[in-house]
Amino acid sequence: MDTHAPRKRDGEQRRRELCDAGIQVLAEHGSRGLTHGQVDRCADVPEGTTSYYFRTRAALLRAVGKRVAEIDLANLRSVTERPLDPRAPFTHLAQLTLLQSRGPGLMLNRARHELLLHTTRDPELAEASTKVVSRTIELARDSLAHLQPGTADAELLNAQTNAVTTFITGVFTRLVAGDQTFNDPGQLARQLEAIAAAIAQEHRTAAPEGG
Amino acid sequence: MDTHAPRKRDGEQRRRELCDAGIQVLAEHGSRGLTHGQVDRCADVPEGTTSYYFRTRAALLRAVGKRVAEIDLANLRSVTERPLDPRAPFTHLAQLTLLQSRGPGLMLNRARHELLLHTTRDPELAEASTKVVSRTIELARDSLAHLQPGTADAELLNAQTNAVTTFITGVFTRLVAGDQTFNDPGQLARQLEAIAAAIAQEHRTAAPEGG
Repeated sequence: MDTHAPRKRDGEQRRRELCDAGIQVLAEHGSRGLTHGQVDRCADVPEGTTSYYFRTRAALLRAVGKRVAEIDLANLRSVTERPLDPRAPFTHLAQLTLLQSRGPGLMLNRARHELLLHTTRDPELAEASTKVVSRTIELARDSLAHLQPGTADAELLNAQTNAVTTFITGVFTRLVAGDQTFNDPGQLARQLEAIAAAIAQEHRTAAPEGG
Repeated sequence: MDTHAPRKRDGEQRRRELCDAGIQVLAEHGSRGLTHGQVDRCADVPEGTTSYYFRTRAALLRAVGKRVAEIDLANLRSVTERPLDPRAPFTHLAQLTLLQSRGPGLMLNRARHELLLHTTRDPELAEASTKVVSRTIELARDSLAHLQPGTADAELLNAQTNAVTTFITGVFTRLVAGDQTFNDPGQLARQLEAIAAAIAQEHRTAAPEGG
């Protein structure tokens, strides 16, 4: 048993490296560019390695998609473990978003964009991505709880969460398109706060007596 | 000369039909699924027809991308030729966005999503898409002009336009992902208005004396 453990660990390490190369290939060459051979070259491993670990292209795509979700969750954890400034409750969310504005984060963002349509067709991949979405929604709700302590209006909280996450989704897509407008987490945090306040204002106008 | 005219018209018609089939293939099978053979089958034309009109895959992708931009511009024209209710100035923009929430509009939306990374690599395609973006920005600016007549603060108008179009981009991406939260143009118009107002409020706080 013991003699197998290191090999298994090596195998997992190798899979992870191949998936990371797959993210880079997706980001640079799009979904069509993701082939076993291209991942071999990008990971600088012998031809056939990627095929050995992931027999089919569907298996490769699914593994790369799950790796994207895994990195997303790690990023979420690393951002949220820093203390939050209660006067700027959307800072975590803004930092998390703009992690993906350049470098490896932008690559991750582009790969996720390429995977989106595929995710709608693969329930197993959809499940991995749902986890990330749920954690992001939780983070938005935590931020809102800091912004307006004690608010128990579920409908309002839903509308605000929805607006804030939609705006962030828009930022992600614009970053993929090469837009460089968004680069200041402090400013983005203030915009998210303003949007949450605007939705509260609109909600009060629509239902003035707490309806 | 005259005898050639109908043939040329037929050729253009045929190209358009092939591009429309290409949009459907992109939306259903993703960028990797877009092959000449798949477009032939989707358009129900003899094998080899798509290759005859678009020799390479790059030519096919570019033609499909330009067709997406052409339909986008036609949709923009058809929405904006209806009279605008000055009390709900974002209605046109909201209608235009939610045109793409189902049916052929959702297909267009999904195809555009698949083309985005490709667009960043093809300057000719980027030019076609820039036209659509510019017209959408104009529409957002017109809506803002109705919301706050006489505002000449260029920095504020830019920030508002940016926020409104980012939110719309987020809606587009969520529709691609299968989200069905957004389906009421009136509600979306009110949200866009609230966001524009929030950005104005934040702008005033940041620069209270017209700085």
